[in-house]
Amino acid sequence: MSENSVIQEIGAWLNQYQSFALLSHVRPDGDAIGSQIALGFALEAAGKTVRLINEDGLPENLAFMAGSERIETPPAEPVEVDVVIALDTATQPRLGDKALAAVANCRRWINIDHHKSNPGYGDLALIDSTSPATGQILYHLILALGLPMPAESRDAIYVAVSTDTGSWQYSGTTAATYEMAADLVRRGTDVGALNALTYDNHPMRRVELMRALLNTLETSACGRLAHWQLDQETVHRLGVKPEDSEGLIDIIRAIQGVIVAIFFEELAGGKIRVSMRSKDKRIDACKICMQFGGGGHSLAAGIRMAGPMDDAKAKVLAAVKAELAATEN
Amino acid sequence: MSENSVIQEIGAWLNQYQSFALLSHVRPDGDAIGSQIALGFALEAAGKTVRLINEDGLPENLAFMAGSERIETPPAEPVEVDVVIALDTATQPRLGDKALAAVANCRRWINIDHHKSNPGYGDLALIDSTSPATGQILYHLILALGLPMPAESRDAIYVAVSTDTGSWQYSGTTAATYEMAADLVRRGTDVGALNALTYDNHPMRRVELMRALLNTLETSACGRLAHWQLDQETVHRLGVKPEDSEGLIDIIRAIQGVIVAIFFEELAGGKIRVSMRSKDKRIDACKICMQFGGGGHSLAAGIRMAGPMDDAKAKVLAAVKAELAATEN
Repeated sequence: MSENSVIQEIGAWLNQYQSFALLSHVRPDGDAIGSQIALGFALEAAGKTVRLINEDGLPENLAFMAGSERIETPPAEPVEVDVVIALDTATQPRLGDKALAAVANCRRWINIDHHKSNPGYGDLALIDSTSPATGQILYHLILALGLPMPAESRDAIYVAVSTDTGSWQYSGTTAATYEMAADLVRRGTDVGALNALTYDNHPMRRVELMRALLNTLETSACGRLAHWQLDQETVHRLGVKPEDSEGLIDIIRAIQGVIVAIFFEELAGGKIRVSMRSKDKRIDACKICMQFGGGGHSLAAGIRMAGPMDDAKAKVLAAVKAELAATEN
Repeated sequence: MSENSVIQEIGAWLNQYQSFALLSHVRPDGDAIGSQIALGFALEAAGKTVRLINEDGLPENLAFMAGSERIETPPAEPVEVDVVIALDTATQPRLGDKALAAVANCRRWINIDHHKSNPGYGDLALIDSTSPATGQILYHLILALGLPMPAESRDAIYVAVSTDTGSWQYSGTTAATYEMAADLVRRGTDVGALNALTYDNHPMRRVELMRALLNTLETSACGRLAHWQLDQETVHRLGVKPEDSEGLIDIIRAIQGVIVAIFFEELAGGKIRVSMRSKDKRIDACKICMQFGGGGHSLAAGIRMAGPMDDAKAKVLAAVKAELAATEN
């Protein structure tokens, strides 16, 4: 089906059915929550009944978003809705077990996403990997179908796309993205106030975490490898929450000369989560992480591996150094 | 003269005269250097002779900009040009003594700026304080006058406006700003590559400076006041350059609950530079700084005052705490 036919078919379903459960991925980010609010409030303004369900609920750092109070964790009893809409979620399991159980009685599925790796699960799949955020797909969908655009939807789209493009910076940001931003501003988005809430509103413990991480910063391989680490003692001492570390790896990725940046994080239970970034296409972070059972993209990948910290670090750093040495030849 | 008449008059001068010296303010930022490159290359593509002069020359963090190699420090001998164009510079003294001496023989002055406080010095003044960056004024000027837009100008405008809006975030960013960005992308700006050079390309010593500053972070007044400091010993140990600290105060300004953020910096010679940010219109940073001979804007102001550090800190912190206490009543 062409993209335009899919959009028309989705429009027919949104028209025909009355109740919807909108889901997004585990550990939700701005594009996940923003997409739920954007489409949810548009449908509600069109007279539909809507539930916004996320496996992990609303993270504290997105609680500033108007409409975010509607995000709920999966109810114990299955919900009875006509249609499930999965948003910004590349594979069904990434919706979470409890969220999937909550919508188990529902047989009609729509899948709207911008991840290239999305296989197109569901009855209707609108996948546009040229869009830098799912929020941008929903913007065009809402306009194409003539759905209402209440203030909650408008600002949720702005936040979704802003956060997924690193504030309009990453390579996926196109002329259409900036034109969308212009239109949202003309519709009333307060750019200064909304960005202050999105970016200038960190809890003190995030800054303390930044300091703790910087104090563990090490570089090697002639400055091409930079890494820092977080242990459970520090997590408890600072009261670190999962979302606090979001984006901090960019600080060391941005160092001149660094090719690979790594964040080693000790999890409750002793496993080690490894987040790896590469700035050079010749160093495939995904390939390195797959050696340890991890995966991801070529420039951003990760692992969950056995501890203790020093063992995990030694193994991963050795593998990265071998790759760096190989590219010198 | 109406804005449109000024633009037409500037167009007449650009047409009539042959040689131009383009200046910008001391300690230049992305909008200063970007504006010089943007207009300079447009004029050169139109067949004119152009010199790009800055009192302090090109800062290392902007050396990635195409065309930046044309930025020169003021030559010892006065330059002979038909017209001087001051860009992004609120008052003539901010152009710097050596730069002013270098253009002392020139009698025709154009002044293009977005600072509200610009008194409109020069023969022709195009001041638009609704524009978030001088680069955006130049974008509209180049289009209005039908000047060429070579790649250097196009990307310099993008960098000028991006850096002066905090990556399209601050309240001055309008629909027209995003529409301009869309047009620059359609003209060929490589968003991903250009932003990586602008934002993801810090020298290691900037990250070391961030760590050193965080290790001096103190908060008081129930978390409403946050401050950190830099002494000369650390400047020498890390080899800190003036541009390295640019924007770092945003890290503590962004802390939840913080109303006033202050950066105390010991200068060579022992004076103390104070940079102050307020997040609340009721706390006027300019008014506080004026008590110590400083000034600026209500939400961003500064002082240069006598040391030593501890004395300066004690005086300024007491003044801020008095203001914070006064707003409680």
